[in-house]
Amino acid sequence: MAGSAKLLPIHEIALKCGIENEYLIPHGKYVAKVDLSLIDANKNKPKGKLVLVTAITPTPLGEGKTVNTIGLSEGLNYIGKKAIACIRQPSLGPVFGVKGGAAGGGQAEVLPMETLNLHLTGDIHAITAAHDLASAALDARLYHEERLGEEFTAQTGLERLNIDKNRIIWKRVIDHNDRALKNITVGVGGGLNGVERKDGFEITAASELMAILALANDLQDMRQRVGKIILAYNTDGDVITAEDLEVAGAIAVLLKNAINPNLMQTVENTPVLIHAGPFANIAHGNSSVIADRVALPLADYVITEAGFGSDMGMEKFFNIKYRQSGIAPSCVVLVATVRSLKSNSGKYNIKPGQPIPKEISESNVELLELGAANLAWHINNAKSYGMPVIVAINRFPHDSDEELAFLQQYALKHGAFACEVSEVFTKGGKGAEELSHHIVNACEQTSKVKLPYQDSDKLIDKIQCMAKKYGANRANLSPQALNDINDIEKLKLDHLPLCIAKTPMSISANPNLKNVPTNFDIDISHLALSAGAGFIRVYAGNIMTMPGLGTNPAYRHIDIDEQGNIIGLS
Amino acid sequence: MAGSAKLLPIHEIALKCGIENEYLIPHGKYVAKVDLSLIDANKNKPKGKLVLVTAITPTPLGEGKTVNTIGLSEGLNYIGKKAIACIRQPSLGPVFGVKGGAAGGGQAEVLPMETLNLHLTGDIHAITAAHDLASAALDARLYHEERLGEEFTAQTGLERLNIDKNRIIWKRVIDHNDRALKNITVGVGGGLNGVERKDGFEITAASELMAILALANDLQDMRQRVGKIILAYNTDGDVITAEDLEVAGAIAVLLKNAINPNLMQTVENTPVLIHAGPFANIAHGNSSVIADRVALPLADYVITEAGFGSDMGMEKFFNIKYRQSGIAPSCVVLVATVRSLKSNSGKYNIKPGQPIPKEISESNVELLELGAANLAWHINNAKSYGMPVIVAINRFPHDSDEELAFLQQYALKHGAFACEVSEVFTKGGKGAEELSHHIVNACEQTSKVKLPYQDSDKLIDKIQCMAKKYGANRANLSPQALNDINDIEKLKLDHLPLCIAKTPMSISANPNLKNVPTNFDIDISHLALSAGAGFIRVYAGNIMTMPGLGTNPAYRHIDIDEQGNIIGLS
Repeated sequence: MAGSAKLLPIHEIALKCGIENEYLIPHGKYVAKVDLSLIDANKNKPKGKLVLVTAITPTPLGEGKTVNTIGLSEGLNYIGKKAIACIRQPSLGPVFGVKGGAAGGGQAEVLPMETLNLHLTGDIHAITAAHDLASAALDARLYHEERLGEEFTAQTGLERLNIDKNRIIWKRVIDHNDRALKNITVGVGGGLNGVERKDGFEITAASELMAILALANDLQDMRQRVGKIILAYNTDGDVITAEDLEVAGAIAVLLKNAINPNLMQTVENTPVLIHAGPFANIAHGNSSVIADRVALPLADYVITEAGFGSDMGMEKFFNIKYRQSGIAPSCVVLVATVRSLKSNSGKYNIKPGQPIPKEISESNVELLELGAANLAWHINNAKSYGMPVIVAINRFPHDSDEELAFLQQYALKHGAFACEVSEVFTKGGKGAEELSHHIVNACEQTSKVKLPYQDSDKLIDKIQCMAKKYGANRANLSPQALNDINDIEKLKLDHLPLCIAKTPMSISANPNLKNVPTNFDIDISHLALSAGAGFIRVYAGNIMTMPGLGTNPAYRHIDIDEQGNIIGLS
Repeated sequence: MAGSAKLLPIHEIALKCGIENEYLIPHGKYVAKVDLSLIDANKNKPKGKLVLVTAITPTPLGEGKTVNTIGLSEGLNYIGKKAIACIRQPSLGPVFGVKGGAAGGGQAEVLPMETLNLHLTGDIHAITAAHDLASAALDARLYHEERLGEEFTAQTGLERLNIDKNRIIWKRVIDHNDRALKNITVGVGGGLNGVERKDGFEITAASELMAILALANDLQDMRQRVGKIILAYNTDGDVITAEDLEVAGAIAVLLKNAINPNLMQTVENTPVLIHAGPFANIAHGNSSVIADRVALPLADYVITEAGFGSDMGMEKFFNIKYRQSGIAPSCVVLVATVRSLKSNSGKYNIKPGQPIPKEISESNVELLELGAANLAWHINNAKSYGMPVIVAINRFPHDSDEELAFLQQYALKHGAFACEVSEVFTKGGKGAEELSHHIVNACEQTSKVKLPYQDSDKLIDKIQCMAKKYGANRANLSPQALNDINDIEKLKLDHLPLCIAKTPMSISANPNLKNVPTNFDIDISHLALSAGAGFIRVYAGNIMTMPGLGTNPAYRHIDIDEQGNIIGLS
């Protein structure tokens, strides 16, 4: 679709939503960073309504949440409202791996897709560089303290940090799917090669700096958060922060441009802000607070997307992003697909890179009904946060009218404010006309965010509270986890909210339990602090922070043609 | 100085040199990429003269070559000529390490200095990402072929590459000084972590992709060169290229924006093109062919800088860049300093991060005379390539009039076309007024490039020829080196020019031999192919491709102040 759309120069898109030229930092003809000083300039303007897009439990293929976020912003513009979409920046790893890009698609795509999916304005590269500067600084300090021994302070004028080389928790990052870097040994051979120790790389989306960029309120707030990052422990067991290592300032300098959100446009020439891209498991999985703050005074409606299902990104939106920013949504849109609910029946498995079982593509209301409880669970989960919930059924070609009618009745019966079919992929904004009217109506309701736990609750109670929300009987904490709770309480950081790191493929922490799991426990292996981002990671299962490339990776098909155009990117 | 200069919007700088808006890809107000389609648009325009700036044997502090490149371009504009400077992009490693940025300085600086020294438009990040994609692809293929064994082809439809894990020559890169990454083990533990093997990181300036970006003629040429890169050998000893791994297209796509050079301005609002940043030892150390091709039809004079002394970057300009591009300079400017020639006396050592010995700062013609032979050597070296040579004495505050007068006479006596003091740091273009007139005169001379060896010469003869040029009695080749020559001849790549990888701190390959070393041999340990860049690396000594951070790295002092400005960057 990208090929047929007529792009407008980005300053025209900016003008449409009231951004004057002086706040635009152009990056080519179709992308501009928006200087965040615009937030202050607009501070007295009335704010639009925030709409949070989430989903049922997804299959590994994704269910079109980004397509619908983009499409709903087109839809609201189509019915005459001013709307801006706020989404995350795609990571290069999936672009060259299996999943491909994350620009939406069809008539609900961000353009130019190639720019969005590749470097954009370099924000992710800046995070990679800033993150790895801290790693280089840590290893250099370790090396010089070991090399100079007792002479270190006399020769350098610096106090020793006494970094415990076995308790360096700041891994390195790279924006690729590169499994060989997951477990590495650095400084091999010692001597001039540095201090030999175990280390590893994670993908940049997993960096605490990515979460900080997404949660910071402004530049100075970002600078302060960076200083609080815990990089390692010293040999006495005390924390060593980025401030202690004197690297926080340089990190903030490297992120100074990245803090300005990126303005682009949809196929229908409506505005989109792209900013940050934190994971939705070990981080909070939402685009930035700053993008929301820029967008809200400019639009009637700001549509933003949270990663994975409502048990993941949406939960973290409320418990982490909302707690920190105070910006509440007015309603939640829950994206569902017939395909995914059939998969939730537990009878068929959908795997990336493999054909979809044909039973899933045939009209079958009984099969759909078997998985529909998952939709009901997510409706109620979103409602439990105090939100009216609109279900958007993302239509696929195989879906039958019977199936769609069944789902609509089912959703309304289980508490949805409204439920409509979304055809934004094929029709753009017109394909979300009804849904857009429902959003307008839902946003006129009075809603108030309800949080499941209070900051002041004991850490163990917060964990049990969240386990119950997933439907678990209880959370079982390992001795390590209990020890971690103790340490966090000693550091007086137990007031921070939780960031539950668990699989997105089940409401439980076990990816094999489909639909609405019952009668299960959640095992918590350990906890870890993201003191700069401002949350406590609670690990319920093994979380992959460095994906690998498969046997048929996307990069094989990506090239430049004879006219110099990019081909094979999707 | 940056603070007091009045910057012009980049489109005004572009207009000054005849670049229409349609060829500009703005990145903020003061930087724009220039679309390389401008080369074709200007192909029938008359071309300006190219001036190559080089230096005597430098101290580790550098002798102001960039300052003078910028300053001479200001000087030529000052005397009424149209001139553009073409320089390389600084690497983040030195910016956060000891050396600091590479924007020039004083009244001969590129602005905004912060933009130049940090991410600029992301070209180096793009190279890092493209390079490391090939690494991830290599390790993924190694893993899947090992994991699937005999089933690999049946399951994937791909032929086995049979990568020899002990002969993967493509290391990973990162744009930091990070010694702990020099020698690493990847895939530790095997299994799902990949295949365990030795690996290492180099700094991005050492990537063959950086050399390719600097040498490519256009986008399609770059794409073809990327395909030729030798990544590894298979278990039969045959080469595996980026094309074989099917990753060349994706690499070229990642570099598609990076191929457009970056337009900025000097303190005096004259145009500068910044593009690529290859090392001057294991690569050819010059800014890009494309930047020269963009600049030459736009200006009367294009001033470009080659890395280190004339035995390094200038030699490689002629033997590598000129051989490939066919673009010849009209004269050479040789930058010298009193300080550096005194250091070449061999009586005092200048080390980074340490105070300069006071004897070097006191007026002392005798001491200067002891080191002056180094200047004569470099004058004659540049003349041997067929060029008129203008010596620019970069004035430092301590230099006495007697010392400067001595050097001027000395240079003229030893064959310089002209010799003048340069005061561009304090005075900008006016400080190079006389020098600029000399350049105009020198460029009116008829000059013809003389190359020391022919493409068709035998590889061993090329090496002996270059050893003689350094003043060595002979090159001694190790058995490994002889073996490598044999392999390169078998691959029919022995027509490629040499890239001698040696220390820049001496004309010889021994950094301790100052001034003009005599009666020495050069030991060649091994050779290696940069088949995509199009040269053969000949190793004369250990070359550092991954620097480390010292005990007082620059990052400690870099921060954001209360007004949000960057401080401590230089």
